[in-house]
Order: sequence, then C-alpha cells, then structure tokens
Amino acid sequence: MNRVCNLLGIKYPIIQAGMVWCSGWELTSAVSNAGGLGILGAGSMYPDVLKHHILQTKLNTNRPFAVNLPLLYPDIDQHIETIIKEKVPIVFTSAGNPSIWTAILKAEGIKVVHVIANSKFALKAMDAGVDAIVAEGFEAGGHNGKEETTTLCLVPKIVESVNIPVIAAGGISSGKSMLAAFALGAEGVQIGSRFAASKESSAHDAFKQKIIDAKEGYTKLTMKSLMPVRLLKNEFAHQVFEAENKGIGKDELLELLGKGRAKRGMFEGDLINGELEIGQVSANFDQILSAKEIVDEIWRDFLFEKEQLNQLKF
Amino acid sequence: MNRVCNLLGIKYPIIQAGMVWCSGWELTSAVSNAGGLGILGAGSMYPDVLKHHILQTKLNTNRPFAVNLPLLYPDIDQHIETIIKEKVPIVFTSAGNPSIWTAILKAEGIKVVHVIANSKFALKAMDAGVDAIVAEGFEAGGHNGKEETTTLCLVPKIVESVNIPVIAAGGISSGKSMLAAFALGAEGVQIGSRFAASKESSAHDAFKQKIIDAKEGYTKLTMKSLMPVRLLKNEFAHQVFEAENKGIGKDELLELLGKGRAKRGMFEGDLINGELEIGQVSANFDQILSAKEIVDEIWRDFLFEKEQLNQLKF
Repeated sequence: MNRVCNLLGIKYPIIQAGMVWCSGWELTSAVSNAGGLGILGAGSMYPDVLKHHILQTKLNTNRPFAVNLPLLYPDIDQHIETIIKEKVPIVFTSAGNPSIWTAILKAEGIKVVHVIANSKFALKAMDAGVDAIVAEGFEAGGHNGKEETTTLCLVPKIVESVNIPVIAAGGISSGKSMLAAFALGAEGVQIGSRFAASKESSAHDAFKQKIIDAKEGYTKLTMKSLMPVRLLKNEFAHQVFEAENKGIGKDELLELLGKGRAKRGMFEGDLINGELEIGQVSANFDQILSAKEIVDEIWRDFLFEKEQLNQLKF
Repeated sequence: MNRVCNLLGIKYPIIQAGMVWCSGWELTSAVSNAGGLGILGAGSMYPDVLKHHILQTKLNTNRPFAVNLPLLYPDIDQHIETIIKEKVPIVFTSAGNPSIWTAILKAEGIKVVHVIANSKFALKAMDAGVDAIVAEGFEAGGHNGKEETTTLCLVPKIVESVNIPVIAAGGISSGKSMLAAFALGAEGVQIGSRFAASKESSAHDAFKQKIIDAKEGYTKLTMKSLMPVRLLKNEFAHQVFEAENKGIGKDELLELLGKGRAKRGMFEGDLINGELEIGQVSANFDQILSAKEIVDEIWRDFLFEKEQLNQLKF
C-alpha cells in the first residue's frame, strides 16, 4: 500500500543511508534481510572494492539493496558500469546533477532515487525522471545543503512540490521521529547515524562508541565555503572551526583538511585527528544494536506511536 | 484532556510566540479570542508600553493571554511588577535563568512557561518549578540556542527528560507540522513567523510582505559570537555575514549592529538596513491572514492530517 515499499520491493519503508566507511556489504545485507533497504556507500570505495561489496551483498541477501552514488565521484563511469553489470536493482544518487545518469540507469531497469536539500533540485530530479526523492535536512550527518533547511521545514515543502514519493532524512532515529516524518507527508525514512553505530557497520569500534556517547551540541555543520559537512566535534573539527573564525580561505581549508581524514577517523578510529561525520540525532540513542534490532524496534515503535497519536482526544 | 489546554485554559494547544515588534495587544487578543494563546512580546516594550498593551488586551479579550519576558531585560523588575499588579494569568520566560523569578510569579498564582533549546536548561527550568517547557529548535526565528539542535531532534529529547508538558517551537506553521510535533511527544505548539505576518501583527506591512515572499534559504542563523539570532537575509544581514567571514570580534560586531536595528526593520519597515528576525518556515506559507483564520486553518488541518495518518495501512 505504501509507494516507497512498492517501488523498492521492501517490507518496511526504513532505508539505511549509504555512508562512507560505514555501510559495506555486512550492514547493507543485514538491513535488507531485516525488511528495510540496505545501501552500499560507494563514495568511499574504489571500483574494485564496490564490485566486491556488491557481490558479497548478493551472496548474503536475496532481498533488494541499493548503491549510493555521489555523482561527483571521480570514477563514476566505472561505478555505473559495475552497477549495471552486476544488476544492482536500486541506485541512490546524491551530490550532483541527476540529469546525466538517470536515463542510463533507468534504461537498464534500475530504480533511481535522488537526494536533495531544496525544492529547486527536487523539481530538477523529478524532471530527470527519478523514481523518488530523499529530502535531507540540516541535522543530517556528513554532506549537507547550503540553505541549512531543517527536515521539519524541508519535507512538507518537497512533498508539496513533487508528485513522486518523498523519503525524509536527517534527525530520524526512532519510531517517534519516523512518525513525525510521515505526519509531514514522507512515505519513507532514511536513517544514517543509528546504523553507523550498529553492530554490522564497518565503522571503527571507537567511532561507534563516540556516536552513542554523543550529547546535544556535539556536532556542527562546518566547511561551508567548500561543501557543508556535519562533523562530530573533536580536535580536528575544532582546528577547522578556529581557522574558519579567523576567515580562512578555501585553499587553506583544503590544505588543512588534507587527504584521507574521513577514513582515518571513521574507519581507522583516530578520534583526535580524523574526520567524524555524524548527525545531530546521535544525541538521541545510546546503544550499539544489530541492524535487525534497529529495524524491528523502529517499526514496532512507529506503529505504537501511530496508535497513541490516533487516540489523543481534544 | 490535553495538558497544555488545561494548564493554560485554552481551547486549542496553539500558542502565538511573543515576538518583539510584532505581538502587541491587537495580535495577542485576536489569537486568544480565536481559542489559542496570545502572547505579548515584552522584549521590545518599555514598562509603560507593556502596561498599556496589557490593559488593551484585557479590554479586548476575556480569554487567557500571556506576556513573554526575556529574563535579561534590563528593567525586568518593573515588568514583573506590572504583570503581577495587572493579574496577567500566564508568563512565558526566555533568555535567562528561571530560578530567580519563577517562585515569585507562581506565588501570585501566575502560570510560568520557560523557553529552552537543550535538555540541560529544561531540567533547570523544571527544578525552578515552571509549569511547562517550550522546546525551540534551530529553525526558529529570532534568538536561538548555541547548539543548533533542530526541533525534530530537540523535542523528543526534551519530552524524555522532563515530566511537565512540552510545547514545540521552530519550523511549525501548519496542521502537518503541528501533527509532526505531536508525533514527537509535544502537547502544544508555539508559532511565530506565521503570526508575525498576520493581519493583526504590529509588524510593518513591508516586513509582512517580505515574510510571505520568503523562499528556502532566505534566512540564516547569525551573530553566533554574541547571541545567535535567525535573520532574513537583507543588506544589513549580508554586512554581518561578511564581517563574520572576515573573523570580526564581538565589540566590532556590536558596533555594526548598533541600536534600534530590530525596530527599524520589523516595525518601521526598513528592509535594507533594519534587522529582520524570522524563522525558516517563512518559506512555507504565502498569505497574510487574520489570526483567527490562521488558528482555524491550522486546527482544522491538524485534525484532518491526524485522521489521514491514522488511515495509512502497511
């Protein structure tokens, strides 16, 4: 009955965000096996690595899964070739122009969902022929929109602007927040932070612990002059804030950022000098659970809270 | 049945935010007459002006109304004296420590509601004896929290932290967004931007037009080194952004801000050099309606969307 479930061939409209250094085949297949949609985060994978993860995902689940493809990825044509060759059923595109690749993917029978942070790009994506939209708010971890529109303001605006299904992202970690997204007209939710700290996440254990220990105000949207990204505040992040407060230029910021910071932080567990991408909602949960436990809990609570809300009398 | 309605003696749990230069007696009495709670924005009023607005409100409505009192207001003891003498039934306190004045107000039979932006201050307010909490997210207009926590992330966190009713603020303008707040556990909503652009608002007509013309990305949280405030982007705001990008100090920022900018912008209609405080949600509505039309529409849509959500089948 739900358009997102029908479109993606999943049981619950719960989608695990494709995340650099966190969502490899272990997490992706676990989420898909639990009845949600698992997504491989191709942004941190070389072409041969992505191929390996696709093959492993297919070995470990019979259910639909997806690849998240940042459209600015340098070897994107190789990724696209692998996706088509290995018959990946669904692609989530982000960070770039969907008009170039959508038709090519759709001609192969692949469903395409595009991530946006404003209604202008939602309309462009719809014109490009995508099947659904992810509307991602300011509170989301990692890369983010320049307008800083929050999920609460963004989702109803996008739902009003397009006639394809809208999946809400940013700030969602629980049955309650999933219900709020549905109240706004979303037909699915994409959840990152909670799954980044799951048992099957490929994030380093030290980073997972840092995620569940996070409190309000522990993250900040930064590097706005390059591409805004929400980081957990650590030694490296504070260096960036300080440099930005002093009015640092783009080139100096790129130099400060350097190479491999995200891998160093999230995958190798360098909590001091690594880049730690995570959402605000990391303040709202405190357990490392399996992907199945997370999906089951969110779905159970969603149905429970929906009934509670229905029973409110005025 | 609803704790917020019972506590405040109102028909609908819809509260009009107390706003500098927008919410005088005309708006306050109109919202209260419509079945919501109208609030006088005392932050922009001298003691004799507040007294005048309280008297006019009492002349124009028999329903409960409130005064919003920023606790850092310089002549706060005079405001408190007037509030007690004129038997204002409800006070919303903000921007300061509620432990000093709450007991004094409550001893006079006045209900006290305190505005916070994190769970630490919510707990302090509860300890101070306030009757309810307003949890205000990053997307809200005007003064704002330093942690930048959005309404979607903040409200469930506060609902979990306290046992008194929580009123959601920031990003709410419609029945849908009100329903989302209730899904998160809020028992009421506080709405600013929508009422700032209402017929009865004391804002200048040119500012009202600017509010309904606003699109996504037209506002920005700024002046973070002083006290964060969300502004509509205009010539003055761009001067502030530019100065901040260059790493301006607090004193220089205060000098740039100068005196009377808010009055100049919002009350006198100087859209170029005035300070225009408004929320992100200004992108989500485009009509100047009466307070009654706004309350009626939001309540009707809230009940409609609640039934729609209930009927979703999976």
